[in-house]
Amino acid sequence: MSVLIKNGRLVTAVDDYYADVFVQGEKIALIGADLTVEADTVIDAAGKLVIPGGIDPHTHLDMPFGGSFTADDFQSGTKAAAFGGTTTIIDFAIQTQGRSTLEGLDAWHSRAAGKATIDYGFHMIVTDMPVERLGEIDKLVEEGVTSYKMFMAYPGVLYADDATHYRTYRKAGEVGARISLHAENGIVIDEIIRREVARGHVTPTWHGKTRPCRLAAEAVFRAAAMAEVAEVPLYIVHLDCNDALVEVKRARERGVDILCETCPQYLFLDDSFYDRPNFEGAKWVMSPPLRHRSNNEPLWAGLTKGDISLVATDHAPFNFEGQKEMGRELFTKIPNGAPGIENRMSLIYHGGVVQGRFGLNRFVEVTSTAAAKIFGMFPKKGTIAIGSDADIVIFDPDVQRTISASDPATHHMRVDYSAYEGLEVQGWTETVLSRGRVIVQDGQMVQDGGGKYIKRARCGELLR
Amino acid sequence: MSVLIKNGRLVTAVDDYYADVFVQGEKIALIGADLTVEADTVIDAAGKLVIPGGIDPHTHLDMPFGGSFTADDFQSGTKAAAFGGTTTIIDFAIQTQGRSTLEGLDAWHSRAAGKATIDYGFHMIVTDMPVERLGEIDKLVEEGVTSYKMFMAYPGVLYADDATHYRTYRKAGEVGARISLHAENGIVIDEIIRREVARGHVTPTWHGKTRPCRLAAEAVFRAAAMAEVAEVPLYIVHLDCNDALVEVKRARERGVDILCETCPQYLFLDDSFYDRPNFEGAKWVMSPPLRHRSNNEPLWAGLTKGDISLVATDHAPFNFEGQKEMGRELFTKIPNGAPGIENRMSLIYHGGVVQGRFGLNRFVEVTSTAAAKIFGMFPKKGTIAIGSDADIVIFDPDVQRTISASDPATHHMRVDYSAYEGLEVQGWTETVLSRGRVIVQDGQMVQDGGGKYIKRARCGELLR
Amino acid sequence: MSVLIKNGRLVTAVDDYYADVFVQGEKIALIGADLTVEADTVIDAAGKLVIPGGIDPHTHLDMPFGGSFTADDFQSGTKAAAFGGTTTIIDFAIQTQGRSTLEGLDAWHSRAAGKATIDYGFHMIVTDMPVERLGEIDKLVEEGVTSYKMFMAYPGVLYADDATHYRTYRKAGEVGARISLHAENGIVIDEIIRREVARGHVTPTWHGKTRPCRLAAEAVFRAAAMAEVAEVPLYIVHLDCNDALVEVKRARERGVDILCETCPQYLFLDDSFYDRPNFEGAKWVMSPPLRHRSNNEPLWAGLTKGDISLVATDHAPFNFEGQKEMGRELFTKIPNGAPGIENRMSLIYHGGVVQGRFGLNRFVEVTSTAAAKIFGMFPKKGTIAIGSDADIVIFDPDVQRTISASDPATHHMRVDYSAYEGLEVQGWTETVLSRGRVIVQDGQMVQDGGGKYIKRARCGELLR
Amino acid sequence: MSVLIKNGRLVTAVDDYYADVFVQGEKIALIGADLTVEADTVIDAAGKLVIPGGIDPHTHLDMPFGGSFTADDFQSGTKAAAFGGTTTIIDFAIQTQGRSTLEGLDAWHSRAAGKATIDYGFHMIVTDMPVERLGEIDKLVEEGVTSYKMFMAYPGVLYADDATHYRTYRKAGEVGARISLHAENGIVIDEIIRREVARGHVTPTWHGKTRPCRLAAEAVFRAAAMAEVAEVPLYIVHLDCNDALVEVKRARERGVDILCETCPQYLFLDDSFYDRPNFEGAKWVMSPPLRHRSNNEPLWAGLTKGDISLVATDHAPFNFEGQKEMGRELFTKIPNGAPGIENRMSLIYHGGVVQGRFGLNRFVEVTSTAAAKIFGMFPKKGTIAIGSDADIVIFDPDVQRTISASDPATHHMRVDYSAYEGLEVQGWTETVLSRGRVIVQDGQMVQDGGGKYIKRARCGELLR
Repeated sequence: MSVLIKNGRLVTAVDDYYADVFVQGEKIALIGADLTVEADTVIDAAGKLVIPGGIDPHTHLDMPFGGSFTADDFQSGTKAAAFGGTTTIIDFAIQTQGRSTLEGLDAWHSRAAGKATIDYGFHMIVTDMPVERLGEIDKLVEEGVTSYKMFMAYPGVLYADDATHYRTYRKAGEVGARISLHAENGIVIDEIIRREVARGHVTPTWHGKTRPCRLAAEAVFRAAAMAEVAEVPLYIVHLDCNDALVEVKRARERGVDILCETCPQYLFLDDSFYDRPNFEGAKWVMSPPLRHRSNNEPLWAGLTKGDISLVATDHAPFNFEGQKEMGRELFTKIPNGAPGIENRMSLIYHGGVVQGRFGLNRFVEVTSTAAAKIFGMFPKKGTIAIGSDADIVIFDPDVQRTISASDPATHHMRVDYSAYEGLEVQGWTETVLSRGRVIVQDGQMVQDGGGKYIKRARCGELLR
Repeated sequence: MSVLIKNGRLVTAVDDYYADVFVQGEKIALIGADLTVEADTVIDAAGKLVIPGGIDPHTHLDMPFGGSFTADDFQSGTKAAAFGGTTTIIDFAIQTQGRSTLEGLDAWHSRAAGKATIDYGFHMIVTDMPVERLGEIDKLVEEGVTSYKMFMAYPGVLYADDATHYRTYRKAGEVGARISLHAENGIVIDEIIRREVARGHVTPTWHGKTRPCRLAAEAVFRAAAMAEVAEVPLYIVHLDCNDALVEVKRARERGVDILCETCPQYLFLDDSFYDRPNFEGAKWVMSPPLRHRSNNEPLWAGLTKGDISLVATDHAPFNFEGQKEMGRELFTKIPNGAPGIENRMSLIYHGGVVQGRFGLNRFVEVTSTAAAKIFGMFPKKGTIAIGSDADIVIFDPDVQRTISASDPATHHMRVDYSAYEGLEVQGWTETVLSRGRVIVQDGQMVQDGGGKYIKRARCGELLR
Repeated sequence: MSVLIKNGRLVTAVDDYYADVFVQGEKIALIGADLTVEADTVIDAAGKLVIPGGIDPHTHLDMPFGGSFTADDFQSGTKAAAFGGTTTIIDFAIQTQGRSTLEGLDAWHSRAAGKATIDYGFHMIVTDMPVERLGEIDKLVEEGVTSYKMFMAYPGVLYADDATHYRTYRKAGEVGARISLHAENGIVIDEIIRREVARGHVTPTWHGKTRPCRLAAEAVFRAAAMAEVAEVPLYIVHLDCNDALVEVKRARERGVDILCETCPQYLFLDDSFYDRPNFEGAKWVMSPPLRHRSNNEPLWAGLTKGDISLVATDHAPFNFEGQKEMGRELFTKIPNGAPGIENRMSLIYHGGVVQGRFGLNRFVEVTSTAAAKIFGMFPKKGTIAIGSDADIVIFDPDVQRTISASDPATHHMRVDYSAYEGLEVQGWTETVLSRGRVIVQDGQMVQDGGGKYIKRARCGELLR
Repeated sequence: MSVLIKNGRLVTAVDDYYADVFVQGEKIALIGADLTVEADTVIDAAGKLVIPGGIDPHTHLDMPFGGSFTADDFQSGTKAAAFGGTTTIIDFAIQTQGRSTLEGLDAWHSRAAGKATIDYGFHMIVTDMPVERLGEIDKLVEEGVTSYKMFMAYPGVLYADDATHYRTYRKAGEVGARISLHAENGIVIDEIIRREVARGHVTPTWHGKTRPCRLAAEAVFRAAAMAEVAEVPLYIVHLDCNDALVEVKRARERGVDILCETCPQYLFLDDSFYDRPNFEGAKWVMSPPLRHRSNNEPLWAGLTKGDISLVATDHAPFNFEGQKEMGRELFTKIPNGAPGIENRMSLIYHGGVVQGRFGLNRFVEVTSTAAAKIFGMFPKKGTIAIGSDADIVIFDPDVQRTISASDPATHHMRVDYSAYEGLEVQGWTETVLSRGRVIVQDGQMVQDGGGKYIKRARCGELLR
């Protein structure tokens, strides 16, 4: 199997040039001017960008939630991702409290096996970690799971106390892994919620009001302090507000190895969505919540300057009907999460490049390269270079589309609404290669399945 | 009863002038040049400073600890305080977990009643605070207990979780009270200790090494965040290191009502004391611990600039023999605390005024006035003005002494060592009036007993 | 001559108590409860505040400007000051470039002699300072002129280059004097003005637009850097915007001895005044200009927290008719300055105490005590204490007035408009003593003249 | 002409992979695994890094100085650069005050023409810029000179006042050019020098002592303020100390487009060198001076984190004998500058990669790619990509050498000393291609001459 992509403008996180790319089997084999080599498939990319396939390091497919599951499984979710130009995801395996993390990993392998169209890795969500079980972490590393997510939010569910955090951080640092953090002080938030609910504040609006930004900043500061003492690299997921960003920057400034991602929802949307009538605000009930719109530009600026490393989606879709509706009487019962796995690349191209906040190289970096480097997949993933996996997106920089759940061309996620309904964007994924296979061509899926698990390397190690 | 103090140099937190002071009964009645009024007692203060009696808002007298008690009770402790020029203390009543705070207050009233030579108030240490018991706080305010101390350290003992903190903060804010905080993340510290002890690190040196400054800064940040959301004034006790001070300043800068005290031990001593041979380091085992000496000057600077409001002692004396020795095999068993109630005024005069860091007005402010204002006792206490309690110290600015547990003239505390053994200071308390009674004259106690409980006003309210 | 003030609430920068004050001759002689001493004059201050007379350390009386003079001379200006509760001013003597500063001092002594109703000191404006003339500064100190103002603005007029600044700073530091700074980069501002005028931008609005805040911050940073190297205390006059305040705070944080004042116009007014029709904006043409209203609250906060030491007026009145009008065709010809000497105390009481930004003690500190301490006049001025000059204001905290140039009761300045026209304030000066003389009583001037020159002490020295 | 580089490890600012590179004429034509294409020259790069040729954007070749010239001209200097792995320089053309900048450009074209072995561009040093001459800047842009360097140091020589700065900044911003700044307040420095020389302080040690870091920080702040108002991108050359770096970061944080370079001397050396006996300190007399060694690590950290964009040399060699010696009696007469054009790549590889401060990608970025992007030469220069100039260095990451002026293999600069004498480094340039020509092979020059002038694009524009 071979593919020749002709006449494209190749853009990586640093380069920008015109050349042809020849893919042999799963790998990129040759890059040159006017290649004349023969290929099974020839794609003309004139006028298009040829970029590394997107990497979304934060998705929740087929995730159990209160007797139900997120609306996309590994089949529907990875297909939607592919349509959006994403060729790799890292999903979250969850440890059941009191049980082995390895058991959790097995469970998630079962969920994904044979279903994914694009490649995937796993983070491990650690919910407890007594001393006697620390040895599991060595095994997780062997299994290619080199990042562990921990929560300061969701007491009684995913929350882990500071002792568990510290123990896990210390061990992760020793084995060369990275800690991911959901940064909200859930203990205090639950107190605030209790008080407000007692006052009859039960609508989606109160989801936002009961989770102040300051408690996100607090969690960042606390985790950074623990990570500094424990000597482990830290990564803040779904950074949502400027207060939290300020603490990321300060910790980094004093030498802490701390990085962060944000998500499109925190860049494009704001907490005014919660006030929509007819319970519609529930569509955006997620944690951390949408913030006041004064946070949007500081997050964009953080992305431009490098204070924020990349954009992930936190894709956690729940249908409005049947799922979100469970919280009609009380906002705390609304499943937390929103869809987005399909929209990321176009949103960031539009908001970043079209609107002039940053250039093409940075677009590629924040949507692909940075995630590959941070999470031990580079240069196998995240670039267009000889020997890398041929995960390539041919992206039309000029086409304009309106995102809508009612337009099958813009919405392949298995959920009954779009978080970005009605938003017009410029820039669209046209054709997608995953390890040399053309899976989407001119906006149509031409091949599905075939996604493989990626054993990720340790922090700072190359994966060839 | 009346006293006339002649020829002194009167110094308050703002003024500095020569005048005579006439005390009638318990109050200051008249201030003027060359007063000719008759008095029962006439004191010549020529060449001396006439200053408001010192206020030490952080003492632990007769405090139970693991079957034993701090070595000074309200009798011996307040006498030692008086010798050192302190005429008011605020001690800490402790709530037994699961029991009423009012019960704790009663217990402490019993400990103090009839024993104190100087006036005293109580903070309340809150160890739990379920919703149904929040009403107690209204009663505490009525009883003149308008500040509540909470711990992030000492899990299993005085530690309260973030939910308890937040609930108490919120209520305290509503009633106009202030929260005091012991700022160390004890949960993480216990993890660190567990790990180090397992490696055989059991000497006093490891007391310091297992409590990193960063975890003090973390606690300050967290408490400031909770206080900001809960809208309550916050006060950090025994601020010990620059990392923590930085967070106090940042919180204040963004508008949080946050103040802090430091203690002489964090200004004059450092963690090299822990390395002293023959287990002597145990004398300085306290929490937070002595820090690296690079913290001394930033704390002094904070005191000079007003970033730190005042100097308290955290007087918590344990005898080396019989008490400190309990931890010979394991540093965690050493009772935490050190003596200092007697030394504060001379130490701060010496380090502040004599060594040129600040002037006389600031000396008075940090040793007396600020505590009175912050803790609802001004202008009854903390100044020399008409109508104020005649708590007056006649201070010799020139005399030099060497502090030593073996010199009865410099050590009246009932504990078998001095934390400042061998330190030479300039500036010494000569004569002390407490509510008009001369209790110390020329370095001799001439009257003891007679101290009364002070019902303190709310934050920002005057107490006349 | 003696005066007894009965039943008042005495407030100083730290104290707050009820007492009677007895003034003998020029000095405060006795303070006590229910004084029965006989006096030539007895004033009942029941329900009133008895506070130290205000000190305005920034006025320009009888100042020559382009062939004309500021509208108030030392006679009219000091009377207006007295009506407003100010009993001391520090005016600015100006060195003629190329001539001796001592000559400038003589000239200003001539302007003031025999005219002032309240006491006055002089700062010296230094416009050049060649090496051979540095010796003058020793003489200035002997003459009680211990602060030197220098300009980075007004090239060709009062501007001094960085070499002159540095030389003067260094010498001032050596003799224990303080440098005052007008902080705007006038060189760059003139470039901006040249460009805008060339584009036809000639109205008062462009006075504000051509002097960006960033260039005030720049001047603060530069002066602080020079002062740090030269080891001299620095004082920023008329601090006008948050950008500049940030630099003051940063310099102080790193140890620079830097203080600042602001003025009521920067607290209450904003640059929207420049857009008033009929050239009315010219009334507020001053340098630095009024700023965007987003600067008002940060300046108030700076005053509350102590980042800004005090409030002066920069009183530099020019009549709208005949003076301001000179710039009808071109804003650069409008005389720079506005009146305010009379309004300061009521404005700051209203904005500070009545509006809840700070308490009575801070009100006294920022209107009187701080200026006395910073500029070498304490405790002679700036407090109510035995031995201090009896400069006392009896202030009615409850009365409400509307400031207006058309109301003779609220406007005694010799200028045809008020910068605060129509502003309602609560709190008004009722009776004023200057060195024991009652000069204003119940809002009427009862005695004028009699003001004396004050030889000020060096930085940090007391003046008894 | 064609060259095939086989078996190398290709490293760019983002990529890191094994491949062969085929160069056709001046350009990179093909990159692939195991290329079998025929070539005139085949180089085996097994075990070596294949990286973009270095770019040094700060050199002073053949620069007139007080009747003399820097010791390297474009011939010797570019050869030394090539030996060190640098294939592009940007030198500084100087405007004679009062004359046209274009005249200055012509003069420098004459100096360089036909002499250079590697490609070169020019910055223009602007010493004055009256309004009527601003039009020259449009012509400079046409000539490919899109960056203008200005001095706040060297009064009477290269210094330009703030008005000239501002005018030039504003115009540069309008045409899409960038301002480079020598950031030291030379006016104040000259005052300090005058004072110290008068005290007999004339040795090289005083070169450092008379140029405090604070005055570098001041200049950065001032220029950033002017650039912010003038809306022009700013670039600080030879950033030398942490105080200055802090201001770069703060300006960037508030949105100013400000970048900076540092030089190896500020990373590796410190001001203790000035104290060397026998006037040897003169070798390191340069401006800004070497700083206290506490600045080294913060600058390295800035380079690691991206706060500093790149490393240039400020190569300005003067022989110790005959040139440096002119200042034996007075340090101000020592020609300012030191050699380094040859040492940069090995020094930064050693200090950055070998010593573990950053990785290979960042090494390439700071030595090549960043300069190309910032100064309008990318992707023609600064990367290894199809269509780019074949400026390629084959770098041996393992070989260790000791830099010494007495070792002809490590010192090809035409100057009688090395600033890094005796320093051992790991990592050495083996073979160098300049636009496809092999100029250095295995450490021997095999072809010289052939360097061309580069017309640079505007800020942010690509140069293909």
